[in-house]
Amino acid sequence: MANCLVAQSGGPTTVINASLAGVVRANQLNPVYEHVYGGLNGIEGILQDRLYDLTNMSEYENRVLRQTPSSALGSCRYKLKRNDETDYRKLVEIMDKHDIEIMFYIGGNDSMDTVDALSQWAKANNVAKRFVGIPKTVDNDLMVIDHCPGFASGAKFANQVVNATWLDYHVYDKKRNEVFILETMGRDAGWLAGSTVVTGRVDLVILPEINFDKDVFLAQVKKCMDETGYCYVVTSEGAHYADGTYVAAGESKNDLFGHAVLGGAASVLKQMILDAGVASRVKVQDLSTAARSSNFAQSLVDVTEAFELGMSAHMRSADPTFTGMVVAHQRETIDGRYNAKFIASPAENFANYVKHVPVEWIKPNYEGLTQEFYDYITPLIQGEPTLIMENGIPATVVPYNMR
Amino acid sequence: MANCLVAQSGGPTTVINASLAGVVRANQLNPVYEHVYGGLNGIEGILQDRLYDLTNMSEYENRVLRQTPSSALGSCRYKLKRNDETDYRKLVEIMDKHDIEIMFYIGGNDSMDTVDALSQWAKANNVAKRFVGIPKTVDNDLMVIDHCPGFASGAKFANQVVNATWLDYHVYDKKRNEVFILETMGRDAGWLAGSTVVTGRVDLVILPEINFDKDVFLAQVKKCMDETGYCYVVTSEGAHYADGTYVAAGESKNDLFGHAVLGGAASVLKQMILDAGVASRVKVQDLSTAARSSNFAQSLVDVTEAFELGMSAHMRSADPTFTGMVVAHQRETIDGRYNAKFIASPAENFANYVKHVPVEWIKPNYEGLTQEFYDYITPLIQGEPTLIMENGIPATVVPYNMR
Repeated sequence: MANCLVAQSGGPTTVINASLAGVVRANQLNPVYEHVYGGLNGIEGILQDRLYDLTNMSEYENRVLRQTPSSALGSCRYKLKRNDETDYRKLVEIMDKHDIEIMFYIGGNDSMDTVDALSQWAKANNVAKRFVGIPKTVDNDLMVIDHCPGFASGAKFANQVVNATWLDYHVYDKKRNEVFILETMGRDAGWLAGSTVVTGRVDLVILPEINFDKDVFLAQVKKCMDETGYCYVVTSEGAHYADGTYVAAGESKNDLFGHAVLGGAASVLKQMILDAGVASRVKVQDLSTAARSSNFAQSLVDVTEAFELGMSAHMRSADPTFTGMVVAHQRETIDGRYNAKFIASPAENFANYVKHVPVEWIKPNYEGLTQEFYDYITPLIQGEPTLIMENGIPATVVPYNMR
Repeated sequence: MANCLVAQSGGPTTVINASLAGVVRANQLNPVYEHVYGGLNGIEGILQDRLYDLTNMSEYENRVLRQTPSSALGSCRYKLKRNDETDYRKLVEIMDKHDIEIMFYIGGNDSMDTVDALSQWAKANNVAKRFVGIPKTVDNDLMVIDHCPGFASGAKFANQVVNATWLDYHVYDKKRNEVFILETMGRDAGWLAGSTVVTGRVDLVILPEINFDKDVFLAQVKKCMDETGYCYVVTSEGAHYADGTYVAAGESKNDLFGHAVLGGAASVLKQMILDAGVASRVKVQDLSTAARSSNFAQSLVDVTEAFELGMSAHMRSADPTFTGMVVAHQRETIDGRYNAKFIASPAENFANYVKHVPVEWIKPNYEGLTQEFYDYITPLIQGEPTLIMENGIPATVVPYNMR
């Protein structure tokens, strides 16, 4: 009986470990593989032969793993080169050494591209190894899948913070003449920033899908302040001008993949408002990485689906032709309720495309989103898992790359 | 039968409304007063005769009120002048108009000073009005009381975010050469920043109780990075140099009471680390107002005590000599467990003093806090109330000053 390998890559989320837990648990319910090895720090660690045996994880640890944020196996930003076989051959050597026939890779766009590249190469070179993708990303920008595991919990946390800070912001009277700006992650797609409209609290929302226009924005803030005395703004970190320059440009630089590392859009908007004399104070709240790691605000829908995607990937892999595929879910309505239907689709359909918020769901002049967008988000943030608490906070596992 | 008045002041917390709910509920269980009026936006709104009748609040609304963050009556930063009777006379006029014999004021240091001033003045001038204080503040810096309502929930939220972001921060390997800095509120006292050591995750913690020494701090960050490859720092917004200058000085200005409005210490520390070449990246997470308003992370101990302090204030006020007093709790141990014993003490004991973290609880060189500090904090962040959810987030009441 051969073994399997599972690894995680890219930016973590609060439920990416639930998908890992799903793969491990599925193999306990039906031991298709003799060992389930975790690859530490993604492809990078695997190429250094850093594996951890997860086969006999206790049911208790499995439960705690599901409520542990970040990537318990560690992550990497290392991208396999498509035109250089060196890493491919090295990976197969490691897999052979441990009698591993299949690798499950949990990640975002770049990881799905890796699954595609590896499976294509294996087929073309008659290498009997299989590669399967399990999607995640707090940015919610993957194609095919209805929504990305990790996004809904990020959205639930963002909605909770927006509702709480909106109440905090409105505690003083209008004389304070203050604007509030909350910033969320979201480099290319505005799903997370947009999701906060579910609270019904947000006055203006800035998404990367719409080119930023300073004059229109300032006019809208002024109008809102004049009419109500308050203005609660949510901005995506990826807000940018028509020429592609990020609003936060002064503070950005590139990561190893050439993607801009952002953060700071809210601070730039703050200065803009103060300089224009539209308000005399601006308070900034940047959710930053807390939005993708807040396990105390997991959505029950999200964590359950992430676990089941891991299960599904393992279960489908019992078919020996299952490779180059990514598991996913699509939305359906049963008895008038949201339901996730599980599917699998070739990795090439996920890789290197970005799913934006449909522009027809975005109201003009930063005034929010349409009913279609509410209907899309609302079912995803329902329910709260019962957490195992330890010392007043959710119990978490010691990351496998730190044991 | 006369009426009573209850109002809120100062910066809100996630359980200040639980104290309000306690006053209202106590009067339903024993109607000592015919009406319970809420004063809108603190003293400032009361002087404008802005009251809201809370007497017949439903039990359901009372429950939702307890999980509503911020101050549902609205707040103010208006401070009564001690040497000017104009406002005092105006207040009594409003109270007379509505047949109000007693006012409950929920707030921090300044509000307890107001309770003291009003009750002293009433006694000296034979004015038959009573004034009672109910304490709160996320900063936890009031005297007499063991800990301030609102602080424990802020601490629980801060611990949850520290644990989650620590895991997120450790997902990449050491080559990333990155420092993480989390900033909390806490102008004069480091309770909230210090509380995060309960996670066991924090490498260095900067409190306002210890003068900041840039060289020692940078040496400690370097040592930590050299030894482990990571350094997780927590700083209080009120971190300051020996001459009193705030670390965040460039970004601070004064509020109406002459208190510095802070925020930005972490950003200044980030630049310091980058300039010194101690690390090549620094990630900043500023909890900002989310720490004092995150009702989804309420501590059961905290919200219960806040509710019971409101109850206690109302119940004790049945004694017609009860004025100029503040309700509080002190810590005792029963059957080896933490227990809160309810007391009352003259307002002058609370007003205008600041309770600091005892310096003997602070380890040298930013290396954290002692076991005594752990033992103080840990019982306070235990338990989670069962929240009434609505649309995926905790239900909250519409603030009374916005109806």
